[in-house]
Amino acid sequence: MKHPGCSMDLKQVASEVSKKSKIKVSPKDIERLLGAIRKSSDPWDIIDKSDFPVPAVFQSIGILKELGLVSVSKKGFKLTSHGKDIVGELHPVEDISCSSCGGRGISLEGFSDIKEKFLKIQKRRPKPLRKFDQGYVTPITTLFRFALAFERGDIVGKDIMILGDDDLISIVLGLSSLPNKITVVEIDKRITDFIEYVGVREGFKIDVQTFDLRHPIPKGYTKEYDTFFTDPPETLDAADAFIGRGITTLREPGSAGYFGFTRREASLTKWHDLQKLLLKYKIVFTDIIHNFSEYINWGYEEATKAWRLSPLKIRPRKNWYRSALYRFETLDGFRGNKKNYGRRNIYEDQESSTT
Amino acid sequence: MKHPGCSMDLKQVASEVSKKSKIKVSPKDIERLLGAIRKSSDPWDIIDKSDFPVPAVFQSIGILKELGLVSVSKKGFKLTSHGKDIVGELHPVEDISCSSCGGRGISLEGFSDIKEKFLKIQKRRPKPLRKFDQGYVTPITTLFRFALAFERGDIVGKDIMILGDDDLISIVLGLSSLPNKITVVEIDKRITDFIEYVGVREGFKIDVQTFDLRHPIPKGYTKEYDTFFTDPPETLDAADAFIGRGITTLREPGSAGYFGFTRREASLTKWHDLQKLLLKYKIVFTDIIHNFSEYINWGYEEATKAWRLSPLKIRPRKNWYRSALYRFETLDGFRGNKKNYGRRNIYEDQESSTT
Repeated sequence: MKHPGCSMDLKQVASEVSKKSKIKVSPKDIERLLGAIRKSSDPWDIIDKSDFPVPAVFQSIGILKELGLVSVSKKGFKLTSHGKDIVGELHPVEDISCSSCGGRGISLEGFSDIKEKFLKIQKRRPKPLRKFDQGYVTPITTLFRFALAFERGDIVGKDIMILGDDDLISIVLGLSSLPNKITVVEIDKRITDFIEYVGVREGFKIDVQTFDLRHPIPKGYTKEYDTFFTDPPETLDAADAFIGRGITTLREPGSAGYFGFTRREASLTKWHDLQKLLLKYKIVFTDIIHNFSEYINWGYEEATKAWRLSPLKIRPRKNWYRSALYRFETLDGFRGNKKNYGRRNIYEDQESSTT
Repeated sequence: MKHPGCSMDLKQVASEVSKKSKIKVSPKDIERLLGAIRKSSDPWDIIDKSDFPVPAVFQSIGILKELGLVSVSKKGFKLTSHGKDIVGELHPVEDISCSSCGGRGISLEGFSDIKEKFLKIQKRRPKPLRKFDQGYVTPITTLFRFALAFERGDIVGKDIMILGDDDLISIVLGLSSLPNKITVVEIDKRITDFIEYVGVREGFKIDVQTFDLRHPIPKGYTKEYDTFFTDPPETLDAADAFIGRGITTLREPGSAGYFGFTRREASLTKWHDLQKLLLKYKIVFTDIIHNFSEYINWGYEEATKAWRLSPLKIRPRKNWYRSALYRFETLDGFRGNKKNYGRRNIYEDQESSTT
């Protein structure tokens, strides 16, 4: 079934893309991209299915075009007949994730009241702003994050810290009445105002604080929480800042951290670097759940690097940006990140494209 | 909701258990244990829900009994009224995983033919032997492992290595006709005979080899495979041997490894050590799926350390042993484990209890 020449080609394409884009790409990434083009002609859908950084995907398509495997027209990307020959032998990209839970492994059944209320409340949320790198997850994703953390024992009676909350999980937590304390640290006053307004209306209290996560967390917040949530930008420095700060807020061994991390803006090499870096804080990964979080198209697509790089200027028709959900627990001797990044731009690197 | 004194108690119990059992236990572990005793009186069910090493669970129950929180009778474990007071404030242990996929996030829908055939064939499999530390997963678990690997692009047209196959995934792979090559390395001739017999009857070919994984993999198998599966014993040395050997068989960056790892015989501190160790081989974790694999009670329970430690000699009535499924990919410059362990016993440590 496998032609020896075929895997060789993938390797060459991968190494050429890695060189040109300065982003590490594997033969498997190229294989998935070819499988994605077999299924779809839409650039955003192809990125979703390919699951490697946007700049490298577009770079790869350029090279596949030069090799005569892919053609580009106004209608989108298509395999040539030569391309079809090669791809026929490869893995078909098929989504066979569980349709009940969307592959998340968890059930929302017990939370229908909270779900109904939250779906209504969140309709009036502030729209994403580019200057804060905002782009929130679907309200269903927020509810699933809550349900997972509930199941893992990280909600009931706990003190919970949220570092950046355009996803509004603090509101779901408030509606549930299950945590002991909820703190939101958020730079955008529109969001903190919205959360406080909902809290007053619905009768729950959320402690809201504004500060810039490039600076260390103030002392009053260190070692005070059982659980934290964050959804950092995908550069190593920003992830280290957001997650590392989160760890400093945690109380004791067995406290839990949750964060999203995507492959749309981070190669697996960067994933490796992040995993290594976080293990140094003496934490342990307990869950990594593929494509757990789905993001709503944020509306400023045309202003992003992804748009500039795309050979086809088509606006996304459906949500295409997804990320994995990580959960970890702290161990004996854990510590966080107290570095001060000053005013450095820690939010962009070679692999980013949606800021 | 949270009484300040309460979390303090958990911390003290955790630290005492850690000292006595020499296994690191966190306040959250104790909290989960108390929640489990609220739900169940059966020792095996309680271990399943507590999700930390068996010797430490039984040690903890001893201490909770001394503290007057738990009582032990022939009927099982029970919270005392003082215990109920404390536990009432804590996280309730509830399984809210998706009922369609059992929390695995994947669908078997497309594989009903293979499923039906495999469920029938596996009925005649050899029974687990204690001398090989055998204990196989439910046939549904094997099918889900296959489906997940299919979805991730690690099956179609691939060369697949299986290190130890009492779970019989090679038979599912053979029935699917999807891989290019299937190799099984297994020490138990009853199993290799069974796999070969099924292969001949069903018309697929599996390359079967016998050797002891304490020795390095022979040269003919290195860098020859795209994907490997293994389910190692839970000591660090054995996991390093099985998984590290697996990595040496992988062909190129983007190749994939799958392994099971439980918390029933490995503390999260050991999980951390394993994660750190494996990252050194230049791989990256892409998935960690909680309780993915369910094991069938192996029939030699009375001969195990778990049985000796249990204050209640009751045979398990349902499956209680589960493990997480890890998937990883290799990166540029990856390498495996070529250490020779000679005849050392690498299969037992402080945290093990079912060998």
